Amino acid sequence: MRVLGIDPGLRNMGWGVIEADGSRLTHIANGICHSVGTELPERLLSLHEQLTDVFNRFAPDTAAVEQTFVNKDAVGTLKLGQARGIALLVPAQAGIPIGEYAPNKVKKTVVGVGHAAKVQVDHMVRMQLPGVEINGPDAADALAIAICHAHYARAPGMALKAKGTAA
Amino acid sequence: MRVLGIDPGLRNMGWGVIEADGSRLTHIANGICHSVGTELPERLLSLHEQLTDVFNRFAPDTAAVEQTFVNKDAVGTLKLGQARGIALLVPAQAGIPIGEYAPNKVKKTVVGVGHAAKVQVDHMVRMQLPGVEINGPDAADALAIAICHAHYARAPGMALKAKGTAA
Repeated sequence: MRVLGIDPGLRNMGWGVIEADGSRLTHIANGICHSVGTELPERLLSLHEQLTDVFNRFAPDTAAVEQTFVNKDAVGTLKLGQARGIALLVPAQAGIPIGEYAPNKVKKTVVGVGHAAKVQVDHMVRMQLPGVEINGPDAADALAIAICHAHYARAPGMALKAKGTAA
Repeated sequence: MRVLGIDPGLRNMGWGVIEADGSRLTHIANGICHSVGTELPERLLSLHEQLTDVFNRFAPDTAAVEQTFVNKDAVGTLKLGQARGIALLVPAQAGIPIGEYAPNKVKKTVVGVGHAAKVQVDHMVRMQLPGVEINGPDAADALAIAICHAHYARAPGMALKAKGTAA
């Protein structure tokens, strides 16, 4: 099962693709979509195009997007929401099931504690995906989300619920 | 010049199309995209599909989206942001210029005062678009946004700035 993790952001949208064969995880690719342009519509368009390209290249079977805690200022929340709309739309357009996980759940699953530091998450991602080269913090977070999703997707009774229209 | 106004919302996304020939405005169509489904990704997908259909049917030359004041709770702001991401993406994908107007600017342009009541906006939309049948409050707001955009788009020195990649 090929799993795509997405860490949504308006400036940088991290993504990571892993292959999950039972409990065995293999790194496939990771990267960051950088939004291009100065105006909001063109930035959203460029994120949509780049993320669609990731889908076309790696054909994931399922995707997971980080759930957002809205503890930032309202303007930041609105910006993040707009980027998150794109992050959820692209897998829905591909018709694959989509999971959403709170940051603390991702950390708890990958590291073992919900309040793990970024460096611990990064370390555990490298441990679980030997030889991985990570293209920056947002891509590391996206790989952690993919690992978390792979864990829950294979747990008994946790069959993925199809959420896209074509799934 | 055919102008599309969009009033973004996750549950109901109002839209209104007018034709602007100098200062003469003609109503073309208006309606509401209702998001379908219970899960967020499929709701965003259904809004994207319906709004894309509006574009295909009415081929607007330019679009305008209401700017959001983030005075709601954070969860509401995030939801609205996600819907707004779709509302901005679709015209960007069509490659047409996009305007954004704060609610008070729309009211000031359409009614003459920035703190006009909804009923006044509705009244002035009907005055400026004789014979219009309006499909609900969100569609009325969308028509007001379109009227506002038509006003600024024809003002001297206010030529529309192309913001979509193909524009």
